[in-house]
Amino acid sequence: MTPLIVAALWMTPPPAADPAPPSSDEVMARAGPEDWRPLDPDNTLYMELDVGRIVMELAPHFAPATVENIKTLVRAGYFDGTTINRVQENYVVQWGDAAGEKPLGMARETIPPEFVRERRGDDFAVIDQRDTYAPTVGVSRGFKAAQDGRVQWLTHCYASLGVGRGEAADSGNGSELYVVIGHAPRHLDRNITLAGRVIEGMEHLSTLPRGTETLGFYAEAEESVPIRSVRLAAGVPVEERSKIEIMRTDTPLFRAWVEARAHRARDGWFLTNAGAIDLCNIPVPTRQAADAE
Amino acid sequence: MTPLIVAALWMTPPPAADPAPPSSDEVMARAGPEDWRPLDPDNTLYMELDVGRIVMELAPHFAPATVENIKTLVRAGYFDGTTINRVQENYVVQWGDAAGEKPLGMARETIPPEFVRERRGDDFAVIDQRDTYAPTVGVSRGFKAAQDGRVQWLTHCYASLGVGRGEAADSGNGSELYVVIGHAPRHLDRNITLAGRVIEGMEHLSTLPRGTETLGFYAEAEESVPIRSVRLAAGVPVEERSKIEIMRTDTPLFRAWVEARAHRARDGWFLTNAGAIDLCNIPVPTRQAADAE
Repeated sequence: MTPLIVAALWMTPPPAADPAPPSSDEVMARAGPEDWRPLDPDNTLYMELDVGRIVMELAPHFAPATVENIKTLVRAGYFDGTTINRVQENYVVQWGDAAGEKPLGMARETIPPEFVRERRGDDFAVIDQRDTYAPTVGVSRGFKAAQDGRVQWLTHCYASLGVGRGEAADSGNGSELYVVIGHAPRHLDRNITLAGRVIEGMEHLSTLPRGTETLGFYAEAEESVPIRSVRLAAGVPVEERSKIEIMRTDTPLFRAWVEARAHRARDGWFLTNAGAIDLCNIPVPTRQAADAE
Repeated sequence: MTPLIVAALWMTPPPAADPAPPSSDEVMARAGPEDWRPLDPDNTLYMELDVGRIVMELAPHFAPATVENIKTLVRAGYFDGTTINRVQENYVVQWGDAAGEKPLGMARETIPPEFVRERRGDDFAVIDQRDTYAPTVGVSRGFKAAQDGRVQWLTHCYASLGVGRGEAADSGNGSELYVVIGHAPRHLDRNITLAGRVIEGMEHLSTLPRGTETLGFYAEAEESVPIRSVRLAAGVPVEERSKIEIMRTDTPLFRAWVEARAHRARDGWFLTNAGAIDLCNIPVPTRQAADAE
């Protein structure tokens, strides 16, 4: 700051010194009611395990047909009584009908891939950070995403919710779902449909015993983790819903948040600012709605 | 390939067509004995938990004084009977003397920070991939690393082993250690000393229950996970040592491996090649020495 003080000696009136750029704590403290949004109960899933609830937000703005199919399956109770049958270290947790024989009911068997969508600007905020995998990265309604000159896609980050598929590109119908539990497997981007992300309860998935078969499948059916139910939040009585709010990502506050997270030395303890932040390292804060009172 | 075939029509003799670039399976199949190395027992730690062994490789080429101090602590049995007392979701597992009162014996209390080392070329192989955090990335004796024009540093990837410190830069002496269990927290690079990485047994750490206190510390002492012992491999009878070999990273084979991993469509299932790979997504393969027979 010394140069500013020296300058003040001969300037009248002295210019207002630039305030110190804010730390992430300071940015968070500035967040007003307009910086938060509730989860949409029509696009929120609750997966109930014996150990607790996992809250997932769906992404119909990137995978409309797939999300619709998942909701059809969920409304029919398709996942109730199925299991988590694959847990691969530093990769994914996967669930559904392990035998692949449960009838899909009204849901579709195949869905044209929704790996990418046409590029649009109305809900994609560019984040000015270098990325290994994509020319440009950004955030879209809370979801990490990327784009090239033609298309946009959701990115595989920790907690991303994806749609298992076989060899055929259209074979992912939502009856087998996975969540990323390790370092972002970005090589999966544009190879498989992402349909959402986990908002709360990741620890119920990330701590599960790893499967010992190829790809982390459990060797014995008894190892599989029972799923009590998967419900759409809109189908759950209001008083039983999780009261979560998400920081909006299309705001000046969120931009300041990203900038502060790239300069952690403002927070203390850190001695060196990275001056940059990997897309998948940017936290999208959540809070309990009660915290707003 | 069409242009090559057309060219062959008027050229005599026809040029040998470039063979298809290899898949990662094909690269692995080509690995000969010279592409593997054993772990150095003088720089390998075994942490024994009730659930099994965690094998860690130390990095004296980046953190010589810190590694020496850790080995002094280990030889004195410092960690035996201490606990894992912090498990923070998508971040780190940490262990040591939770109360911070156990005498360090012959080990040093403070160590000048080894966050970076001077730049050298003899053991740093550049990996030609774009990175969010560093101008250049590479690999050094199996360790992921980065450099600028002046210095080199180990990078925080999944399974990296780091040295907890307080506010003071020199306060990390090795009596509190941590391992990354989530998406690479690269903002820690150059802020804290990295001293090694986990080679085997990550699942024993990544599946531990998450702590509910701030930063993932366990709320109650009873939640802490007992450490039976930490030993240097050299101090363990040969027949009780883990027989692990690591793929060398200074070879043409490893370069081909990285290239193949950036083009996963060669492996089948994948439809789109990323054409790039994030430093922390590059696997450094290991095998049981028995596999070599």
